Amino acid sequence: MKLLITGGGGFLGSRLASTLLARGQLAGQKIRSMVLADQVAAGPKLLADARVQMRTGPLLAQCAALREEAFDGVFHLASAVSGECEADFELGLRSNLDSTRALLDALRLNVAGGGAVPRLVFSSSVAVFGPDPGVPLPRLVADDTLPAPQTSYGTQKLICEHLISDYTRKGYIDGRSARLMTVTVRPGRPNGAASSFFSGIIREPLAGVEAILPVDADVSHPVSSPALTIEGLIRVFEASRAEFGGRLALNLPALNVRVGDMLEALEAVAGKRVRERVRHVRDERIAGIVANWPTGASFARATRLGLKPAASFAHIVRQYIEDCRNSPDAETTLKGMLQ
Amino acid sequence: MKLLITGGGGFLGSRLASTLLARGQLAGQKIRSMVLADQVAAGPKLLADARVQMRTGPLLAQCAALREEAFDGVFHLASAVSGECEADFELGLRSNLDSTRALLDALRLNVAGGGAVPRLVFSSSVAVFGPDPGVPLPRLVADDTLPAPQTSYGTQKLICEHLISDYTRKGYIDGRSARLMTVTVRPGRPNGAASSFFSGIIREPLAGVEAILPVDADVSHPVSSPALTIEGLIRVFEASRAEFGGRLALNLPALNVRVGDMLEALEAVAGKRVRERVRHVRDERIAGIVANWPTGASFARATRLGLKPAASFAHIVRQYIEDCRNSPDAETTLKGMLQ
Repeated sequence: MKLLITGGGGFLGSRLASTLLARGQLAGQKIRSMVLADQVAAGPKLLADARVQMRTGPLLAQCAALREEAFDGVFHLASAVSGECEADFELGLRSNLDSTRALLDALRLNVAGGGAVPRLVFSSSVAVFGPDPGVPLPRLVADDTLPAPQTSYGTQKLICEHLISDYTRKGYIDGRSARLMTVTVRPGRPNGAASSFFSGIIREPLAGVEAILPVDADVSHPVSSPALTIEGLIRVFEASRAEFGGRLALNLPALNVRVGDMLEALEAVAGKRVRERVRHVRDERIAGIVANWPTGASFARATRLGLKPAASFAHIVRQYIEDCRNSPDAETTLKGMLQ
Repeated sequence: MKLLITGGGGFLGSRLASTLLARGQLAGQKIRSMVLADQVAAGPKLLADARVQMRTGPLLAQCAALREEAFDGVFHLASAVSGECEADFELGLRSNLDSTRALLDALRLNVAGGGAVPRLVFSSSVAVFGPDPGVPLPRLVADDTLPAPQTSYGTQKLICEHLISDYTRKGYIDGRSARLMTVTVRPGRPNGAASSFFSGIIREPLAGVEAILPVDADVSHPVSSPALTIEGLIRVFEASRAEFGGRLALNLPALNVRVGDMLEALEAVAGKRVRERVRHVRDERIAGIVANWPTGASFARATRLGLKPAASFAHIVRQYIEDCRNSPDAETTLKGMLQ
């Protein structure tokens, strides 16, 4: 089979690509080739795989050519993040809405020209949930909670969910939308997302760097690890349409965890000295944004697909440390533990 | 104030224009000029009003020029109807999604250039509600029922609601979305909507023409009259943002009525001979579409704005007859009563 991963040069996209290439198959079919589309190229290890073709440049500019190309499967992960979309409205519309629309139309026109109907998984987000000022969120947002996004990012993700449902209903694609929880621990540097600190308060202290916690310790939030997020995307791809039993958007499993408990887990796994590198300096702007986010999520439909959240946040921290140990950068990324 | 009515050449748009021109003011401001944008021109009476400017042509093609023009208020009614959108997917995307997006961007760019933030009312639809195969609809769809549209038309209306919420949140417009119920009795000829018979079974017999009822008499449906729909659009425009108390989309009032009761009302108002011109010939295609529609709607938020549904379907029939009597076509449109 031939796969397309948009955002394939990014953190989740590259990790998904590596995982799939190591598996060798998806939904019972051998993976013969994989196109990664992204603004930035993936790492050398991925590019060295003979099955991988990297295409750099904005997705929107790549879509016209995609009309001529048949894919068996698509993971559509390319996206501008929440902070960027709030700061630059046109960027968000272009990167998240227009690009998705152009991708869906490229796939539709390929099918109209005789190509097979591709299966598509879209990475949506828990950010589709408000809260709306007039409609308080439930303690846990569920698969069927009314989405009333309060960010452009969440709005664009929700709109794409509905486009994907309609293109699927019409038979142009076989689409489904997986709402990602906040992924932590992300490696690398902070990004423009207001949720960036959910990774920073673990990643930086482990690297021996001070981290700022901009919200109070009793803030609760639905998170997932990179590995479980990838597992979720693959399972959602492999599910039959019948397994969905209707609506095509679902919440991926969440570990609903307090920031204070995240720090406790960090201390339990990596020691007091590491944890003490986190300083609480409340940032009213970030605290205000986060106060509007869901404090947790339920995921009945993902559970029916056999998916599970992390057993505890300590598991997530241990997994991150394990990932770092297996990478060439371990001396930097785990410097704070080695000191 | 200067108003724009998209779809201003159509039935509802023209009626809204006449009503507003007769009032002379909106939200306490004098109406000095009114631009009607539509593919077809409005009738001569509207065009004769010195305040009216008609602009014919596709809305999408008109939007670039609109960037240079400041409006105090916009009623965005232009839309392809449900049947058209199912038959021609690209037409639906272009007419309902791309045109709305272009209109919103024209308004946004005008504001960015120093114009005042325009108030905008969008005519959404009860078609935003599914039902989704996996999520049965409640007996009455409410303001906060989870929308899971099963038509391209409903999908596009829902997407536009979310765009309007986000443009409003960002301060580019002051938008709100009113979900219209099925408007009956529409004058004129049947249109491409699957709901067309809800008008046909009243309008044709009154004109002395046989009408086909394609569904069973026990089908229930949320309807509203043209006059009450216009009243709703104006009230939603005049409401302050505080009156919304959060979410910007609401159901307009519905009279939830069985088709059998519609025919009883027709007989009560216009006589047995008129009613007997309706023949029940079940059309499986239309019956199948209608079986997926909400059987009724609730409208708590509209009630808080002081809006009410028709007191009975007989009121709606009488109002239609009254409208016909006041028009030059009365001899044709009421031929079935005069015979």
